Amino acid sequence: MPLVQRGPGDKSDSRYCGVESGFEDDVAHLLASNLSAGFDFMVFPLIEPNYRPSLHKVDHGGDFVLPVSGSDLILSPSQWSSHVVGKISSWIDLDSVDEVLRLDSEITLKQEIAWASHLSLQACILPSPRGAHCGNYARCINQILQGLNNMQLWLRIPLEKSDPDVDDNTSENSGHLGGGRVIDAWEMWNTFRLLCEHHCQLSLALDIFRSSLPSANSLGRWFGEPVRAAIVHTNSFLTNAKGFPCLSKPHQKLMTGFFNHSVQIILSGKLQRKVPPVSSEHLGADHDGNCFEVMPSDPLRPYLNYIGCLYQKMGPLPEQERFELNYRDFLQSPLQPLMDNLEAQTYETFEKDTVKYSQYQRAVHKALLDRIPDEKASSVITVLMVVGAGRGPLVRASLQAAEETGRKLKVYAVEKNPNAVVTLHSLIKIEGWENLVTVVSSDMRCWDAPEKADILVSELLGSFGDNELSPECLDGAQRFLKPDGISIPSSYTSFIQPVTASRLYNDVRSHKDMQHFETAYVVKLHRVARLAPSQPVFTFVHPNNSTEKGNQRYKKMLFEIPSDTGSTLVHGFAGYFDATLYKDVHLGIEPSTATPNMFSWFAIFFPLRSPIYLPSGSPLGVHFWRCCGATKVWYEWCITAPTPSPIHNSNGRSYWVGL
Amino acid sequence: MPLVQRGPGDKSDSRYCGVESGFEDDVAHLLASNLSAGFDFMVFPLIEPNYRPSLHKVDHGGDFVLPVSGSDLILSPSQWSSHVVGKISSWIDLDSVDEVLRLDSEITLKQEIAWASHLSLQACILPSPRGAHCGNYARCINQILQGLNNMQLWLRIPLEKSDPDVDDNTSENSGHLGGGRVIDAWEMWNTFRLLCEHHCQLSLALDIFRSSLPSANSLGRWFGEPVRAAIVHTNSFLTNAKGFPCLSKPHQKLMTGFFNHSVQIILSGKLQRKVPPVSSEHLGADHDGNCFEVMPSDPLRPYLNYIGCLYQKMGPLPEQERFELNYRDFLQSPLQPLMDNLEAQTYETFEKDTVKYSQYQRAVHKALLDRIPDEKASSVITVLMVVGAGRGPLVRASLQAAEETGRKLKVYAVEKNPNAVVTLHSLIKIEGWENLVTVVSSDMRCWDAPEKADILVSELLGSFGDNELSPECLDGAQRFLKPDGISIPSSYTSFIQPVTASRLYNDVRSHKDMQHFETAYVVKLHRVARLAPSQPVFTFVHPNNSTEKGNQRYKKMLFEIPSDTGSTLVHGFAGYFDATLYKDVHLGIEPSTATPNMFSWFAIFFPLRSPIYLPSGSPLGVHFWRCCGATKVWYEWCITAPTPSPIHNSNGRSYWVGL
Repeated sequence: MPLVQRGPGDKSDSRYCGVESGFEDDVAHLLASNLSAGFDFMVFPLIEPNYRPSLHKVDHGGDFVLPVSGSDLILSPSQWSSHVVGKISSWIDLDSVDEVLRLDSEITLKQEIAWASHLSLQACILPSPRGAHCGNYARCINQILQGLNNMQLWLRIPLEKSDPDVDDNTSENSGHLGGGRVIDAWEMWNTFRLLCEHHCQLSLALDIFRSSLPSANSLGRWFGEPVRAAIVHTNSFLTNAKGFPCLSKPHQKLMTGFFNHSVQIILSGKLQRKVPPVSSEHLGADHDGNCFEVMPSDPLRPYLNYIGCLYQKMGPLPEQERFELNYRDFLQSPLQPLMDNLEAQTYETFEKDTVKYSQYQRAVHKALLDRIPDEKASSVITVLMVVGAGRGPLVRASLQAAEETGRKLKVYAVEKNPNAVVTLHSLIKIEGWENLVTVVSSDMRCWDAPEKADILVSELLGSFGDNELSPECLDGAQRFLKPDGISIPSSYTSFIQPVTASRLYNDVRSHKDMQHFETAYVVKLHRVARLAPSQPVFTFVHPNNSTEKGNQRYKKMLFEIPSDTGSTLVHGFAGYFDATLYKDVHLGIEPSTATPNMFSWFAIFFPLRSPIYLPSGSPLGVHFWRCCGATKVWYEWCITAPTPSPIHNSNGRSYWVGL
Repeated sequence: MPLVQRGPGDKSDSRYCGVESGFEDDVAHLLASNLSAGFDFMVFPLIEPNYRPSLHKVDHGGDFVLPVSGSDLILSPSQWSSHVVGKISSWIDLDSVDEVLRLDSEITLKQEIAWASHLSLQACILPSPRGAHCGNYARCINQILQGLNNMQLWLRIPLEKSDPDVDDNTSENSGHLGGGRVIDAWEMWNTFRLLCEHHCQLSLALDIFRSSLPSANSLGRWFGEPVRAAIVHTNSFLTNAKGFPCLSKPHQKLMTGFFNHSVQIILSGKLQRKVPPVSSEHLGADHDGNCFEVMPSDPLRPYLNYIGCLYQKMGPLPEQERFELNYRDFLQSPLQPLMDNLEAQTYETFEKDTVKYSQYQRAVHKALLDRIPDEKASSVITVLMVVGAGRGPLVRASLQAAEETGRKLKVYAVEKNPNAVVTLHSLIKIEGWENLVTVVSSDMRCWDAPEKADILVSELLGSFGDNELSPECLDGAQRFLKPDGISIPSSYTSFIQPVTASRLYNDVRSHKDMQHFETAYVVKLHRVARLAPSQPVFTFVHPNNSTEKGNQRYKKMLFEIPSDTGSTLVHGFAGYFDATLYKDVHLGIEPSTATPNMFSWFAIFFPLRSPIYLPSGSPLGVHFWRCCGATKVWYEWCITAPTPSPIHNSNGRSYWVGL
């Protein structure tokens, strides 16, 4: 039974909660009692922990039977598959110096995975590597991954750094590192997944213990990694004043992070402290708003209830988030509105973005007030041209601004898409704007305007600002702007920031070609770790008074990752824009200044062909070019520090925007 | 006219010598005088050095002509193509902070390359990057490389580190780094070529100045890089007692290294000191054996003569080297003698390796003396089985050893190739060995021997020792070896060492698939830099008394690159073997202990899918596995330090040896 839903239609994986248990002969009873306690699934060892292949060498007669925890006649295949995550024997150590143990480990590991595949389990949890050296373990898992059905392998990784001074009595389950050295657990994961070449069936289960948590920046890295489950040990819970389990504020925040990134919780461990007996079973809350349950039927039930409460406390998803749910981490090719004509449906979707058009309306409003003093309001007619008018939303916004300010407006609506022009004519008739608006069916770059404009209004920006060729279009339109005329927008800047995004990387990689790695994608970023504040890339100002310079650009950037982050892997760059429409009226999606409640733009994602490993403290040197040819515009990008990458998309061979 | 030849059939590129000159209007005269002075080709600027595109902006009329140093009517296309290497304007600076200079540089660079392509030049020399930052320069070159005809671009790189304290008056030609910082020139090259993705038309011209040379290890790196030319400046010459130019011993050694790696010399600079006048033109030698020429006709002639003498002093190539000339850096798939039957020609070639068989003869000789005391020599018959007898060379060697020692031998010649068996029968008849040798047409792994052997002799080793499955074959043959019997070889070990081998890497890459990167190749290594002493990998001992262990192996190695090498790029591993035939009689190709004058084995090369950058002082962590399946044996390999690579050849998906 899922945790209490956050709202209608909650489909997140993180509404499920599991429980970890030891080896048990009577798995049918074990499962039944845990399901009735409210857990959705169980994690337990598939094979008896004392089994060692080398001790069974004499059995050549073929009468040897694997000592499994229950066959597919004890639990039905569908029970195995929907309620059990297999736990691979934690004694295995493929990097031991003891060769017999190493060979026993390899045989057992392969037998257990084969058995789990036979049961159609959705996932198995692999024990944590014993230390920094995991080459042979990774080799063996990599071999298994090459021929695996669609089962996932979740590598267990302790969330915090190992702390050899703390007495660790949870060693069997802990996955804590041996050898007493402090190793960043992320490094261990990174080594393992690089050796296994980012295999999409290799993911992560994070172990959360009682110890204090790493910094927020360090934790943040995991949100770009394929974390499927967080195994929360009962010893990480505190006890509140009434004797019920609760989590510290940082742990709560981490749980919320997991919930928001579709990570499932698995409870592990024993009841840490007796819960006070209360007369009737019901949920309550103490004066801090912490949830608890009175009189548990199962020793772990209070912990489960607490997790359920935390989940419910997040409340339903905001409407915009719900609308964007299906777009999360889904890569789309950017629009090519200059080469392709948009469809009516696309126009309609974008026109619904009221926040965007009210910003435009504010900008025109201010520009009209600045340009025409009150005393000339009734005598002077301002010529306003909407270039790229589409189906007319900017015409409407401009006319509304004129009405608000009492200024007189003559509007030209210039549109190159002949289909949209049909709609424009129809709109003007419906609205009775015949005397105010002239429709021009032409590409703004070659239109021979009958007069010059005071104000040029356009909405030609893509997720990366100039990527839909706004600069080229507006340079073309500038011919018919008065020397002191105003362009709305007056300037725009693109931004990038390095991200860990293993899911996006694997999606790009699934195409198995270079082209997809040299393409930018529009995407609603979700399972992504943003590693450093974004930095400006290219800026364009309109009207453009330095026509000699052209619209090619080159920008060199150095990103410093916050020092408490640790090492990271950079899969590419998230890109954004911010535009100044007029003076203080801006519009944008750059995270630190993003216009709220605007849905017209997702971010853009520039991938790297090989993810870059960034050791802790190393700056990341990034170069971006905007190149212009006779028929197309394209970006090239590369890394020069810590180690150079190839230059991506040379000559726009993979990705370009047609002029 | 080439330098004096080293011997008959000298076809090396390095027998050509060129000369660098400044911009000159009268290129016809310039070329004629330099050819007559004995140079083979010239390097000079293609365009007038004062040309700047931004100064010609006004010329829109189409009457602008590039100020070239001479058209294809002044020199014929074939003269341009066979005698001229273009020199790209050295003022260009694509990473300048001055945007006008940057844009001028890009335009000029593209114009000059286009002009050089028009002239069908074989190569152009690109000016050295100005410093560590060369991102925009590399981007521009990379764009050019995408569409280039088959012209080569030689990036000029100063050989030594920049030394800001030395007064540098050769700056125009020097390519010395600006900014006064000490940068390892190799790093500059490495950054540039990584950004240009190892493009096979991007290679190197090294500048050699008067300053002292880097260490031998540091210089050695270049022999694995695509160095096409060494530009030797006259200021790097000393003057000998008689007033003639000569080079220091380290410089001489470097020149020899270049000659041996097909690098051409280009002389540059002015006469440094007046050469004493002598009556008649002839070559002489001073008492140190240094060569010089008397009365030069051209100011640079004494330098050219000196270079020619150095070249000639190397003498002709040894016979074995000449035989192997056509195999240099040529990748071959290893033999699969177990799956495939060798051809008569292959047998014949290998049988010519007299050194190899005399080592076997010595081994059998010693084994017979150890096994049979003199007093039993005539009474005891030793049973010797040659397993994998081929066309009989080991049968012959064994019989000769028996004759030398006076021991009696009964020989079984076991061979699985039925065609070779025909030859064996024929050999026995011809040699009259009918009473001594029994031919067995069978696979040694399944032969039912009529008696047990005292000595088992085999030659099943590949370049990497066990890679032709000697262990599996001999384990199978061990059934019919007496408990105290002897195997010749008694053991063998494989070795690897990390190498820089840009040529091999590019050859593997040209297949554009993963399979070729996960395959080992037999290859005569030539343009390769060996970065660290080799280390042992897998050892097999015969007879094998620990049958439980099996023939799978796992070895973890850590290579330390000598600290004076600097940073390097590792393209893969050179592999070798060494075998103990019997006691102190060994056979092998591991460089430090290689058996001289043996030609049966080239090295083996294990590539890496992505070359690994190894910062100065970083150790290289390498893992090799020998994996055994039911029908095949294969290797897997990976890097774990400094950064993990994917595990190569998982499950033998790309490369395996059939059982």
